[in-house]
Amino acid sequence: MDFDLILKNGILVTASEVLPQGLEVGVKGGKIACIGTDLPSSPHTEIIDAEGAYITPGGVDSHVHLAQKNSPTGDGWESGSRSAVAGGTTTIIAFASQERDDTSLYPVLEDYHAKSRDQSYCDYGFHFILTNPTQDILRTELPALAEKEGITSVKLYMTYEAMKLNDRQVLDILFACKSLGMTTMIHAESHDMIALIIEGLEKNKNTDPYFHAVARPRIAEDEASYRAISLAELADAPMLIVHMSSDVAVSHVRDAQTRLLPIHAETCPHYLFLLSEKIKGEPHDHFSGAKHVCSPPLRHDPKDLDGLWQSIANGTFTTFSSDHAPSKYEAVGGKRLGLIDGIPRFSKIPNGLPGIETRMPLLFGQTPACQPADQAKLSLPRFVQLTASNPAKLYGLEGRKGSIAPGYEADFVIWHPGAAGACTITQSRMHHDMDYTPFEGMQVKNWPRYTILRGKVIWDQKTGVMGDMQYGQYLKRGMGQVLHGKTGNLPRGWKEDERRYWL
Amino acid sequence: MDFDLILKNGILVTASEVLPQGLEVGVKGGKIACIGTDLPSSPHTEIIDAEGAYITPGGVDSHVHLAQKNSPTGDGWESGSRSAVAGGTTTIIAFASQERDDTSLYPVLEDYHAKSRDQSYCDYGFHFILTNPTQDILRTELPALAEKEGITSVKLYMTYEAMKLNDRQVLDILFACKSLGMTTMIHAESHDMIALIIEGLEKNKNTDPYFHAVARPRIAEDEASYRAISLAELADAPMLIVHMSSDVAVSHVRDAQTRLLPIHAETCPHYLFLLSEKIKGEPHDHFSGAKHVCSPPLRHDPKDLDGLWQSIANGTFTTFSSDHAPSKYEAVGGKRLGLIDGIPRFSKIPNGLPGIETRMPLLFGQTPACQPADQAKLSLPRFVQLTASNPAKLYGLEGRKGSIAPGYEADFVIWHPGAAGACTITQSRMHHDMDYTPFEGMQVKNWPRYTILRGKVIWDQKTGVMGDMQYGQYLKRGMGQVLHGKTGNLPRGWKEDERRYWL
Amino acid sequence: MDFDLILKNGILVTASEVLPQGLEVGVKGGKIACIGTDLPSSPHTEIIDAEGAYITPGGVDSHVHLAQKNSPTGDGWESGSRSAVAGGTTTIIAFASQERDDTSLYPVLEDYHAKSRDQSYCDYGFHFILTNPTQDILRTELPALAEKEGITSVKLYMTYEAMKLNDRQVLDILFACKSLGMTTMIHAESHDMIALIIEGLEKNKNTDPYFHAVARPRIAEDEASYRAISLAELADAPMLIVHMSSDVAVSHVRDAQTRLLPIHAETCPHYLFLLSEKIKGEPHDHFSGAKHVCSPPLRHDPKDLDGLWQSIANGTFTTFSSDHAPSKYEAVGGKRLGLIDGIPRFSKIPNGLPGIETRMPLLFGQTPACQPADQAKLSLPRFVQLTASNPAKLYGLEGRKGSIAPGYEADFVIWHPGAAGACTITQSRMHHDMDYTPFEGMQVKNWPRYTILRGKVIWDQKTGVMGDMQYGQYLKRGMGQVLHGKTGNLPRGWKEDERRYWL
Amino acid sequence: MDFDLILKNGILVTASEVLPQGLEVGVKGGKIACIGTDLPSSPHTEIIDAEGAYITPGGVDSHVHLAQKNSPTGDGWESGSRSAVAGGTTTIIAFASQERDDTSLYPVLEDYHAKSRDQSYCDYGFHFILTNPTQDILRTELPALAEKEGITSVKLYMTYEAMKLNDRQVLDILFACKSLGMTTMIHAESHDMIALIIEGLEKNKNTDPYFHAVARPRIAEDEASYRAISLAELADAPMLIVHMSSDVAVSHVRDAQTRLLPIHAETCPHYLFLLSEKIKGEPHDHFSGAKHVCSPPLRHDPKDLDGLWQSIANGTFTTFSSDHAPSKYEAVGGKRLGLIDGIPRFSKIPNGLPGIETRMPLLFGQTPACQPADQAKLSLPRFVQLTASNPAKLYGLEGRKGSIAPGYEADFVIWHPGAAGACTITQSRMHHDMDYTPFEGMQVKNWPRYTILRGKVIWDQKTGVMGDMQYGQYLKRGMGQVLHGKTGNLPRGWKEDERRYWL
Repeated sequence: MDFDLILKNGILVTASEVLPQGLEVGVKGGKIACIGTDLPSSPHTEIIDAEGAYITPGGVDSHVHLAQKNSPTGDGWESGSRSAVAGGTTTIIAFASQERDDTSLYPVLEDYHAKSRDQSYCDYGFHFILTNPTQDILRTELPALAEKEGITSVKLYMTYEAMKLNDRQVLDILFACKSLGMTTMIHAESHDMIALIIEGLEKNKNTDPYFHAVARPRIAEDEASYRAISLAELADAPMLIVHMSSDVAVSHVRDAQTRLLPIHAETCPHYLFLLSEKIKGEPHDHFSGAKHVCSPPLRHDPKDLDGLWQSIANGTFTTFSSDHAPSKYEAVGGKRLGLIDGIPRFSKIPNGLPGIETRMPLLFGQTPACQPADQAKLSLPRFVQLTASNPAKLYGLEGRKGSIAPGYEADFVIWHPGAAGACTITQSRMHHDMDYTPFEGMQVKNWPRYTILRGKVIWDQKTGVMGDMQYGQYLKRGMGQVLHGKTGNLPRGWKEDERRYWL
Repeated sequence: MDFDLILKNGILVTASEVLPQGLEVGVKGGKIACIGTDLPSSPHTEIIDAEGAYITPGGVDSHVHLAQKNSPTGDGWESGSRSAVAGGTTTIIAFASQERDDTSLYPVLEDYHAKSRDQSYCDYGFHFILTNPTQDILRTELPALAEKEGITSVKLYMTYEAMKLNDRQVLDILFACKSLGMTTMIHAESHDMIALIIEGLEKNKNTDPYFHAVARPRIAEDEASYRAISLAELADAPMLIVHMSSDVAVSHVRDAQTRLLPIHAETCPHYLFLLSEKIKGEPHDHFSGAKHVCSPPLRHDPKDLDGLWQSIANGTFTTFSSDHAPSKYEAVGGKRLGLIDGIPRFSKIPNGLPGIETRMPLLFGQTPACQPADQAKLSLPRFVQLTASNPAKLYGLEGRKGSIAPGYEADFVIWHPGAAGACTITQSRMHHDMDYTPFEGMQVKNWPRYTILRGKVIWDQKTGVMGDMQYGQYLKRGMGQVLHGKTGNLPRGWKEDERRYWL
Repeated sequence: MDFDLILKNGILVTASEVLPQGLEVGVKGGKIACIGTDLPSSPHTEIIDAEGAYITPGGVDSHVHLAQKNSPTGDGWESGSRSAVAGGTTTIIAFASQERDDTSLYPVLEDYHAKSRDQSYCDYGFHFILTNPTQDILRTELPALAEKEGITSVKLYMTYEAMKLNDRQVLDILFACKSLGMTTMIHAESHDMIALIIEGLEKNKNTDPYFHAVARPRIAEDEASYRAISLAELADAPMLIVHMSSDVAVSHVRDAQTRLLPIHAETCPHYLFLLSEKIKGEPHDHFSGAKHVCSPPLRHDPKDLDGLWQSIANGTFTTFSSDHAPSKYEAVGGKRLGLIDGIPRFSKIPNGLPGIETRMPLLFGQTPACQPADQAKLSLPRFVQLTASNPAKLYGLEGRKGSIAPGYEADFVIWHPGAAGACTITQSRMHHDMDYTPFEGMQVKNWPRYTILRGKVIWDQKTGVMGDMQYGQYLKRGMGQVLHGKTGNLPRGWKEDERRYWL
Repeated sequence: MDFDLILKNGILVTASEVLPQGLEVGVKGGKIACIGTDLPSSPHTEIIDAEGAYITPGGVDSHVHLAQKNSPTGDGWESGSRSAVAGGTTTIIAFASQERDDTSLYPVLEDYHAKSRDQSYCDYGFHFILTNPTQDILRTELPALAEKEGITSVKLYMTYEAMKLNDRQVLDILFACKSLGMTTMIHAESHDMIALIIEGLEKNKNTDPYFHAVARPRIAEDEASYRAISLAELADAPMLIVHMSSDVAVSHVRDAQTRLLPIHAETCPHYLFLLSEKIKGEPHDHFSGAKHVCSPPLRHDPKDLDGLWQSIANGTFTTFSSDHAPSKYEAVGGKRLGLIDGIPRFSKIPNGLPGIETRMPLLFGQTPACQPADQAKLSLPRFVQLTASNPAKLYGLEGRKGSIAPGYEADFVIWHPGAAGACTITQSRMHHDMDYTPFEGMQVKNWPRYTILRGKVIWDQKTGVMGDMQYGQYLKRGMGQVLHGKTGNLPRGWKEDERRYWL
């Protein structure tokens, strides 16, 4: 009972409860040692007075792109993780990305290790993006990487010429992951619909950034989501559909969850707060809409936002991630790749928005901590689930990350008490290595007062980022949990498991 | 008012009504000239007394394979059309099938014309199967074939290695057909799901014919149907999904029809009457199950049948076709291709069942003409819709075929009055050039007493087929109608027609 | 072949087809004797040249209130039927309405006979409104009235203090009607929801006519419709839900039809064309909104209209009726009952709108006869189904009314060829005994050129109503048909018919 | 840091996590003071070694009937609460039940207080059953009872002659509870359907207990549930539908939750484990089926169970309660009231089953603690939600009951480690004052080793019930939370809140 740090006078929020005010958290050796009252302190115990503020688990951002080859501008690990901690995130799961001609994942991983090692303010792990799922990789490398490196999740693309897999490849991966206990993330948009539309738009010289949103209609997401769920159902394999933006697609997930299929869903801040008009850019500079080009695109209608908020509240969404995918607007190799000889070519604009720093404050602002009860869009426990505990569980970090409970690592966000942290999002406040924020000018009702990683304050809103790049640790993850549904389901209409004949 | 033929004393059934008994039909020049009472006859007027029987329009079987290259055994035109008329069908729409390396449709069509010319007892037309939809074919040949040859519908496959198109090709065809007013038929099964399962079954040496049903689970049809509908929705193009066998897939169609999408659905006799146990073959000869190998396969559960009958009655199904696809059981090049060195290989068995002759009697047997009112599965007008008027309208034969109305061609089936036509289906009764019928031993409650094509009796149940092979005419079809929904729909979630930007 | 009347040069429309132009219809003895070409005429044969116009069956308006006790102002039979024929309707089914203290239906019926006898320009029959369903009435009188008087349908109310039945009474009637083969019509709104809201509105002095729409929200219709369908499902009895205005309620019907329950649906012109803003009245005279007070009320949102038009096209609606329920605006005992001492009291305004004359032209204007193909909201055969053939079948007039076929009575509407009949609806054009039309100022694209009843022109747009009040005949109806679904269904979740234990 | 009790060596389960083994729980003053490791003990600290067992929150059984007037035999408070604690339940919410002629709730409450005071082994509170909701009760008494007595929930019946309210009364209560923040529980079955069927069964002399199940078909529950949800939607008021047994009814709840309506659902052990064949009784003694008579009845088909288990796992069910409603089989005034002169009369059998003791073990047996992972029907956190934390939150006990967290009362169940607690349920093991258990002979995989209430062991499986009747405390509850959805919703189809006009 000799603590390194005691948090006092806060209101602890878990994934299921807002605990009574006054509980103290005792931290020792980077872990939560004790939660109780009247914890004993010694002279070397650091005391942080939360002043009645809410204390939530440190954010787990499970969808982050940093230092990927296909995105040469914008954040690397140092700036990306700095931005993360400034916004309350203590754990990042980023991507190590196989290229088409990579026949082994080992050198790829080493490359990504090299870029991140000693470069992160926060703890981090990797998902593997698979673009060339050879039998050797599926049968030999994936199990080894799971065991030795703790990489227990993969991500696939159904679209993008350079990344997309066909349905058979998706199935092969699902069956392989199923047998290993790994989770598959999938970017679900119909490549063929989109390719046809892009050709037509280019032929008609409709190439302003805005046409990116026209090129990727909701139906492309709806169809691909239904297909992805069907493939997962055949394989009886857990899946998470990333960055969902269409409520019809989400309704497919809801239906699957009702039937206990192991289907998970993710959405991102930009799909909850921004509309496609942003992609139109400035009146005098349409190309500036490139700053808001991401896939799926921002949608057209406020009703689209309503549908997603509904699924935030009713539990369909499992995780809320940034999909931080930075490409600078002005830098060579950035967004301006889509401006060729002064002619906009939306299809050449690097996709993606930065958002790792704003993710937590934007969502926290919609909880009862910041809104009248009848206007809040989600509860505080639901905030914890979406931003921390669910991604931790889904991706094999349960017992370490994502919760405020004894035995867990001592990662916290202490929010400004009351409304003291209200501020306006603007590029100059950001800690990323980017030249814009897509949320420029938006008001947030609160901001993290402190971010604490394994018992150490790494962000103090008064003094800024306090950690150092050597502090962040690489996370070997265990196997994830199925949070919606379960495995062991027969596909709809089956009476016995016919898979035994062919597996 | 000088008739070549008068039908007396029957009960006329149209797509909307069972007319009062006693109406007479006067035929002149092969067409229905008049419907009324007390029609005047002259000495050369032939009189047929229907003896109180039901008279329905001559059957239009819009899904028939005859003399296709990939099916060298079994029926050609002579035997196939003979079998058709013996079962009450007066119009066949068969397939002219492009092979992958055919770069022009003209020689293909000429080939199919050559096989059918002067070889058909009944009238006939062609759909074109497209397996290599080049821009030249879509933009130049299809319009010309529609205009000059009256070929106004195409068929696509989403599965089969030799036939399957990818989603982009499907879209290209849908947009081309949409602009021409043509209808697209589609075989919807997920190729990649099936290919994976087949590989696994073969690896596990599960290769008896029965495993064909395991290899093509309902979910493969469900997913592909949803995808096909989505592609049609994007294109705002009319589509018919052929030979549907899964009630989940049909529910996607129902939902699309509710939303007024121009989506049509077809089912076939074998999906309504037979189950997969047939594919198990004889206890001592499993390979005999090959006689029941077709795709999608016969399903496992009586509930599957119930679901389809429901959609027969509630109007979701547009057409009821035979999908007559004959491969002899014993002949070289027939079903025994799936028996290699005495080892069954279900994946090598030619797909398809014969059924052109039994289609009409099997369904008629479920109407109130043959069943107590509360046990009938469909009404008589619905029988007419499914077997004659709907396929005629959908495929551009309205005004000529499919209805009993003045101005239409004088094609009729006169059913045995009462239950006089009850019989047992057996191979020896059939008029096809096949060595089995998949419906062997089934009781039917009635059978056509006469089949009449353009005013001429071509089948008299007492004397047999009376027509000749020169009597059947090639049908240049007009553009079809949209029977469910309409075009002009925006995809779900659209607020304006963004297609204008890229079409 | 000696005709009283021949219609030439028209385009006949049936419930399933638009027949080729040029067919002639020969009429004899008030019935269609023959349809064909080159019909022989004699000197006394009247010839009507349709000049290329569409000819549809005479309209069957199956929901009409005339001369009911609770509606002392406005149309009686003479003016109501005159208005009907001027708008293309040749058959009316009106209501004979039991009052709460009527213990026998016989005197009620005699009363209604007395009011209509020799007072109708068109043919007519009665539904019975039941408000006091005693065992004697259900077991003795209903069978007798069906047999002797041809009254084969009843109507019930779930709301209105003076009319409403509780669920048990509804069930008793459904079981009784089921055993007799009769059809039940039901006004489905939750009485208790509405009563509560009215009390609150009155307490808050929100009593302008507009609050009538507030008092009867869509959810009141949605709930009651679901309940009514459940009661019918338990009884396995055919039911039609009258004047539906909410697309959620209609979706319950759609679902029931999908499952083959015998559930039918009706909507009316005002729910397809008018919104609740009409009930706000003139800016300077809010009470004038009383002219648009009916129940269910006109709905608020254009999307409500879209949802109903969708169900017009997709087949969910069975009938399209006027619900002509006339109360004069200015007359004593009319709409001004809702103005008490100068204070508006919406709940005292007599419900109902006139619309018997405008029903057919308003809907015809949305067919391809009047609209570009891609903007038409329903096909011509669907127009015939909704306005004539379906109500005829549902209410036991098949074989007589509702179709253009030999043997049927010779009831027709000949529409102005082309767009010649376009006009503006205005009170001065109407033939009713009312002082307003709710459709004032609306453009219609066409109007009946002739209305023909049993072979006699009763409306010639050039000369006006030509019939006389003695020409209309009382119709003894047979038992109706089930048009959606079928009887013999088990309630959802049943495995055997447990009704046998308690029926 | 001076504890009365320390639990060591257990695995704590919360509503969101299974915490790492080894955490210790320090209890002081009846509350959880601390959770951590290496907690200091003093000589007077009691230590309980959980031996690696799971520790879950003490059970909260929120649906219990004890000592109600209409149930004179079977358990009163002493035996009922004794049975509860023997099965792991530490909190009961029972009913104080208004009779029709009670015009004030105060004497009723005093009566129920008198029966329970100093008679309970566990803590307890009351819901109020309303059968005569006068304005005085709704406006004056309910607020006072909530404030002074902490009674913050009411229960209504839509069926039972002696209890049922009409829709208007239900609405009045919902609006009243909404304005107070109270939750409404509702028994949803269509009274009129059931009354009709009972009359028919009795007329046909089908009166064995089994016909109770025939008399209350699923459709009665489905309809009433839809209606109840609609009423709650209009009122925007939180509601819990009690003891749901039909998956169609549950699907209405699921749909409501998807739309964020504040609708909650409860099911009970007997609906998950037993089928209607139980009501058939012994072959030689049909009346013994009376032991299994409850409403809704046990359902017929194993699929009914599957549907409910699915909703246990997917989160639709909010609470899992016993609905302990004891009537002895042999005692005068018990089940044999349904045997009149030796003739069974199912409609006279007192409804209800005992189950307060078996509730927790039966459900725990389906978790991964007792089942292989792929056969477990629910997770351990979900077990905690259903049996403890959700009822505590919903009924205003958050912060005190239902969770293992510092500040909460120290209520626990320590389960036998491993499978040591497996046993067979049999009457002789039970601690209730009943003469049978409906689960006779069922195997359970585990049983509570200890039950602890506010830090005191009240059940030790080795020695039996250890508490005393004076230890249980009456709970003044706060206002409950909305766990599914939220208030502030507009009814479907509304664009603005029209309630402001009439509230």
